[in-house]
Amino acid sequence: MTIQTSHIEAHNDKRIGEHRAQYAFLEQQLDKKGLRADDIAERVAAFQVAVPSWALGAGGTRFGRFPIGGEPGNLTQKLDDVGLLHALTRSAGAISLHIPWDMPTDPTATREQADALGIRFDAVNSNTFQDQPGQRLSYKFGSLCNVTPAVRQQAIEHNLEVIEIGRQLGSKAITVWLADGSSFPGQLDFRRALLHTQEALQEIYRHLPDDWRMFIEYKPYEPNFYSMVVQDWGTSHFLAQCCGEKAFCLVDLGHHLPNTNIEQIVATLLMLRRLGGFHFNDSKYGDDDLTTGSIRPYQLFLIFNELVDGMEANELAWMIDASHNLKDPLEDLMQSLEAIRLALAQALLVDRDALREAQADNDVARAQTLLQDAFRTDVRPLLREARRRSGAALEPLELYRELNVRGRLIAERGTKTVATGL
Amino acid sequence: MTIQTSHIEAHNDKRIGEHRAQYAFLEQQLDKKGLRADDIAERVAAFQVAVPSWALGAGGTRFGRFPIGGEPGNLTQKLDDVGLLHALTRSAGAISLHIPWDMPTDPTATREQADALGIRFDAVNSNTFQDQPGQRLSYKFGSLCNVTPAVRQQAIEHNLEVIEIGRQLGSKAITVWLADGSSFPGQLDFRRALLHTQEALQEIYRHLPDDWRMFIEYKPYEPNFYSMVVQDWGTSHFLAQCCGEKAFCLVDLGHHLPNTNIEQIVATLLMLRRLGGFHFNDSKYGDDDLTTGSIRPYQLFLIFNELVDGMEANELAWMIDASHNLKDPLEDLMQSLEAIRLALAQALLVDRDALREAQADNDVARAQTLLQDAFRTDVRPLLREARRRSGAALEPLELYRELNVRGRLIAERGTKTVATGL
Amino acid sequence: MTIQTSHIEAHNDKRIGEHRAQYAFLEQQLDKKGLRADDIAERVAAFQVAVPSWALGAGGTRFGRFPIGGEPGNLTQKLDDVGLLHALTRSAGAISLHIPWDMPTDPTATREQADALGIRFDAVNSNTFQDQPGQRLSYKFGSLCNVTPAVRQQAIEHNLEVIEIGRQLGSKAITVWLADGSSFPGQLDFRRALLHTQEALQEIYRHLPDDWRMFIEYKPYEPNFYSMVVQDWGTSHFLAQCCGEKAFCLVDLGHHLPNTNIEQIVATLLMLRRLGGFHFNDSKYGDDDLTTGSIRPYQLFLIFNELVDGMEANELAWMIDASHNLKDPLEDLMQSLEAIRLALAQALLVDRDALREAQADNDVARAQTLLQDAFRTDVRPLLREARRRSGAALEPLELYRELNVRGRLIAERGTKTVATGL
Amino acid sequence: MTIQTSHIEAHNDKRIGEHRAQYAFLEQQLDKKGLRADDIAERVAAFQVAVPSWALGAGGTRFGRFPIGGEPGNLTQKLDDVGLLHALTRSAGAISLHIPWDMPTDPTATREQADALGIRFDAVNSNTFQDQPGQRLSYKFGSLCNVTPAVRQQAIEHNLEVIEIGRQLGSKAITVWLADGSSFPGQLDFRRALLHTQEALQEIYRHLPDDWRMFIEYKPYEPNFYSMVVQDWGTSHFLAQCCGEKAFCLVDLGHHLPNTNIEQIVATLLMLRRLGGFHFNDSKYGDDDLTTGSIRPYQLFLIFNELVDGMEANELAWMIDASHNLKDPLEDLMQSLEAIRLALAQALLVDRDALREAQADNDVARAQTLLQDAFRTDVRPLLREARRRSGAALEPLELYRELNVRGRLIAERGTKTVATGL
Repeated sequence: MTIQTSHIEAHNDKRIGEHRAQYAFLEQQLDKKGLRADDIAERVAAFQVAVPSWALGAGGTRFGRFPIGGEPGNLTQKLDDVGLLHALTRSAGAISLHIPWDMPTDPTATREQADALGIRFDAVNSNTFQDQPGQRLSYKFGSLCNVTPAVRQQAIEHNLEVIEIGRQLGSKAITVWLADGSSFPGQLDFRRALLHTQEALQEIYRHLPDDWRMFIEYKPYEPNFYSMVVQDWGTSHFLAQCCGEKAFCLVDLGHHLPNTNIEQIVATLLMLRRLGGFHFNDSKYGDDDLTTGSIRPYQLFLIFNELVDGMEANELAWMIDASHNLKDPLEDLMQSLEAIRLALAQALLVDRDALREAQADNDVARAQTLLQDAFRTDVRPLLREARRRSGAALEPLELYRELNVRGRLIAERGTKTVATGL
Repeated sequence: MTIQTSHIEAHNDKRIGEHRAQYAFLEQQLDKKGLRADDIAERVAAFQVAVPSWALGAGGTRFGRFPIGGEPGNLTQKLDDVGLLHALTRSAGAISLHIPWDMPTDPTATREQADALGIRFDAVNSNTFQDQPGQRLSYKFGSLCNVTPAVRQQAIEHNLEVIEIGRQLGSKAITVWLADGSSFPGQLDFRRALLHTQEALQEIYRHLPDDWRMFIEYKPYEPNFYSMVVQDWGTSHFLAQCCGEKAFCLVDLGHHLPNTNIEQIVATLLMLRRLGGFHFNDSKYGDDDLTTGSIRPYQLFLIFNELVDGMEANELAWMIDASHNLKDPLEDLMQSLEAIRLALAQALLVDRDALREAQADNDVARAQTLLQDAFRTDVRPLLREARRRSGAALEPLELYRELNVRGRLIAERGTKTVATGL
Repeated sequence: MTIQTSHIEAHNDKRIGEHRAQYAFLEQQLDKKGLRADDIAERVAAFQVAVPSWALGAGGTRFGRFPIGGEPGNLTQKLDDVGLLHALTRSAGAISLHIPWDMPTDPTATREQADALGIRFDAVNSNTFQDQPGQRLSYKFGSLCNVTPAVRQQAIEHNLEVIEIGRQLGSKAITVWLADGSSFPGQLDFRRALLHTQEALQEIYRHLPDDWRMFIEYKPYEPNFYSMVVQDWGTSHFLAQCCGEKAFCLVDLGHHLPNTNIEQIVATLLMLRRLGGFHFNDSKYGDDDLTTGSIRPYQLFLIFNELVDGMEANELAWMIDASHNLKDPLEDLMQSLEAIRLALAQALLVDRDALREAQADNDVARAQTLLQDAFRTDVRPLLREARRRSGAALEPLELYRELNVRGRLIAERGTKTVATGL
Repeated sequence: MTIQTSHIEAHNDKRIGEHRAQYAFLEQQLDKKGLRADDIAERVAAFQVAVPSWALGAGGTRFGRFPIGGEPGNLTQKLDDVGLLHALTRSAGAISLHIPWDMPTDPTATREQADALGIRFDAVNSNTFQDQPGQRLSYKFGSLCNVTPAVRQQAIEHNLEVIEIGRQLGSKAITVWLADGSSFPGQLDFRRALLHTQEALQEIYRHLPDDWRMFIEYKPYEPNFYSMVVQDWGTSHFLAQCCGEKAFCLVDLGHHLPNTNIEQIVATLLMLRRLGGFHFNDSKYGDDDLTTGSIRPYQLFLIFNELVDGMEANELAWMIDASHNLKDPLEDLMQSLEAIRLALAQALLVDRDALREAQADNDVARAQTLLQDAFRTDVRPLLREARRRSGAALEPLELYRELNVRGRLIAERGTKTVATGL
């Protein structure tokens, strides 16, 4: 199943009149505030988010998993799915591979397929939190932090292998997420575990190609339920400092304790020049991996409000990392893509000069009003315009349903395929 | 300082052209969805929120308090301040009194003043969490839950006195918030404390006038830091059941443990016919008492999304309960009033037939889209229209500043006045 | 592998001298406080906790599962494992079955096996949170709350079938835990979902044998991440009220929002005569399912401090519900059993007359001291004495290792068996 | 009121027989494990905790304050109170002053008084979170982070003045706790605020005497409810790095988000050689400032379990920082002192060689058992022995009540004195 230009055109033709009216009205409103709608639409159009290869099938919890049907059964089909997303939205121009779940058997062919779809390879992800069939040593008690040197060595080598695969595909970064930690007091010597992790990351870093970056992800709990070795941004930052200038912190929105002010962490990391990128999702309780923007859209806006002040200076990696337990993964991803771009567009509307002035005057009420003004504006016409300009569908989710994409994928692939991933 | 009709008119005249254009555009957009903008504007205009008498001065924390200047020094001035708010917004047509902080010395005069300002008396609030000068027995170790019968009796009598004062002013409800609880394991016999509270509330309830209601507020912690007698809605609901049909639960948005799904509690209480009313505010950590809608506007929308399905059947009390530590209290209240009405207007936009259909089909993605469609719509023109129709300012906060109301209040009342309250 | 009396005797003989000295010393200390050590040891010995059939194999998280080896591959082996635990500790005299994971093929034989091991059948557990192979309708979107009547009916019938199986085995209660809920705002009509659940539970309740009880478990989140239909004790209590006198609330220690005062909920349910039983475990973050007492032993003590005042009047079901991701499940369960009995013994030491007096005097410092006195006492000799009297090992975990039980189980069953469960 | 040696002796004489028996028994038990009770008692006796000058009167919440009577009305009386505590317990040999609440008018006399009582001056504390009468510029919108340079300068100078006062008294450290932050999104430019704070701390640091240390405290919220400039250990660590080798992080147990693994932070800071000291207290919800060890004694033990491995290498400052809303402050402090020493003693019992071995073997169950063995031991005889050796009362709280110290203080000072502090 591929999306044809004719599909897009037919879809857009029906909606273009209404879109033009809405966009014209917004353009006029923004103009009064000294903002050019076209500029914002351009910036929105340029904003691309990577899709993770492991999020194209139905996700699950420890209590069970409910298949969706038509799930991609191999890397080629996964790329096809990202291609579908990108054709519909022109906002998903990258894929983030997970090794070994999505080990390419023929990297050249994989790369050519991606090129044809207009998709580049974002950060590659290593996996040292599961034991693969035939794996020599187990990660049950940790990988880079393990008390046994041979396990640490195995995990280091896996990361190097992942870098090598990424290099063949054109990736420029590796994301290291460690499930390492402990579930009971006493299990782990915190300091030794951190020291082992530091040394192992440094070893991996030494093999990092010059034009690559390393992203170190943090998480306070799960799958370990007492401690995680890289529990917070402070630890991730320390580790990045130990490695060198190409090491950065990666922020997954769901990897924080209750009530954490994430936007402040983002600002701090920008100031420290150690922000590497994002894993977007949303959550109410823990690492719930829900659709981005489905629970706390204002927080997402506040994060982008920090980002627009530092995005240019920092080359950042943007990726969605959600789990699709109930919704069609492709629909879910489109909803995430939409929410992310909405937050970006709203953040671009903020009158930053006025905000700085309000801050200088300690005019708290006005500062709040300035942010809320941007957030309360209906910026959907900007997103549609961005899509229109880049050849995407005005309403991707609607077109997806009109074309019965899921039905066709099921027809092609069957109802029982299972995508690798969580 | 009073707001003259001429002030409003002059202010509105300058903005009416732009407003009409924006409203017309929104009207047209809504019309396509089968919604009449005027109907929604009417419902918004009719929605009135009570202002608490204790929130018109600067609030504080246990670490300190920073005066704002021009704070109302007595009940008359407090009524004047609510009058200002109501004149500017026509959405604050009620005041909620706190006894003894705002004991009226001449109830008839107080009532006449309120009538003249177009303000009615919402629920009265008793205070058994502080010791007043000259008070016979201390509430240090609780009031209605106290181990000493005489303390419980004193607290019961205070509540009856509050009802009597409320009756003189035309109130029709009493809100009972109990700080009762314990800060250390062992301090309190949980069961005896709850039993005492039950019996005392029943005693108060027996004296409740026929056309009155009693609201029982719950809170998980603060000012007691180990347990609170009425810790959650379940406890509040049990107590209301014990009292009778005129007893209801009161939901303060800040009185929940981290991550609580408040909208589900609201729905449950509506189903049980025990929802009495709201204390609106916002928070990130605990009972932070921040401006409504300043932290989690989507949650506020989701709460109203539940309410619009049951508001008619349940006569509810709406009140703001925030603490104004940094902002001018009147500005803060105007921002809260705006956010509340925005959430109401957004909730009124939800296509409920389509939502029910999506729910019947387990079409999760569509259900989400339907809510987000409403939330992402810029409904500010509806609020302006509601204000225009009721004779309020199109932009109340701007007019407040144009008129330099705070400056005039300071000129009238001085910089050192301190309003009673927290 | 079975534990012989001779194993126990040989083990105890080596330790009995030291035990007698320690017990004598504690006896003397308690005697000064007016407590008879023997009485407490008897009460501890009588306290039996059920082991769930699904917790005898390695648990896992959504990120993976690491097998332990020698896991029981069928119900017979699971009963054998509980038999091992009970022989070692004489504190695990019951098993709680999960249907369909542990469907008995020959109930009479199963019952005879259990009788021979001295184990009775505690509450049976239904499962409507997973789809079983060949199941007609899916629970993906809920079971008792489902919008589709046929799904609700299927779930009701499954519960009736579970009751029937339980009846054949001698169980006297069913525990209903519902994963029902929603992961996104809008997905579920809260009120309709609760109403459906209420009606379905009432239907199941109507078929409950006269001498049975129904336990309704609550949980705030997971596997649904926006709402759970039975989110808290208040909802569970409402549902139990709707069903009738044989319906009770079940408290799982891990099913609460951060910072919840669980002991107060326990006290409230005791007062309302709706406490049905417990699922013991421990947690730091969410439903972590860690070994009981491994994270918050003082909280466990405080819960038992409430229970000892109402245990006699309320017939309660005690069960461990943990997940054994890292430890040998049998060792883990022995650590839980120990922690539970320690908390019970400590709670039995509390000088309740003095505590009531301190509470009557609002002597907070003394009340705290009285609880801490009990908690700080080393009550392990009481547990050993309880075991000695009932023919268990003085140090069950040590004997388990001395006998190399796990090694023998692996030799018998292999390393690749997988126990049904989470 | 002073405690005479004769009071202590008379008290101890009555209890010494029982103590000797209990200590002898414990000595014997520990001896079997290769531990010398006397060595541990000596280490416990040497462990001294500072008492803050602001915690000797009744504390309060924003909802009110209930006086206790006999509160110290000036610094002399506060020193007297610490003297009482120290005489009774010989564990409170230091006081931590808060400026300006406890500004010494005659430093020499103050120092002599302290010397006579055996009390040294621990870290001094600056206050830039309140406005003092006559203060030129307000800290309403922050101090070191303030947008206005003059406010920052004023706050810097206040800190330098505090250092100067501390120098006169013999202090060797300053603790900087900043309430700086924001309560609303947009209020603060996160990066500029952090930069200002960094520069100001560096300026203060430049004036730090060579033999002094600077402690930078962190806190996630309160009194600001959206963001705090120094929100977590990562930020505090960054700031300490910017300042230099004499700058350290200070851990207040109540200054963390829900569920934080504090012991891991402690271990990390020890590894980074940036742990400066502690503010001890306990909490269930937020910065509840309850008696140390009253809510989570196992967590306190786990923290000390980290500390005993690094205490020698790191010179740490130990202080209690609690608020005494309900209990007599002196009783409360004695309960805290007891809990702290209990945790220390338990941590000293841990068989560290066996623990390291269990960790090397990934023997999680054994590692847990080793910690629990230490925690479950009744170490109170060790604390009594430590007190006996240093001339303190065997049961300080009992002697305090026998002597009716509070009654005498009330007789001396009256019921209406109010101690400066929170």
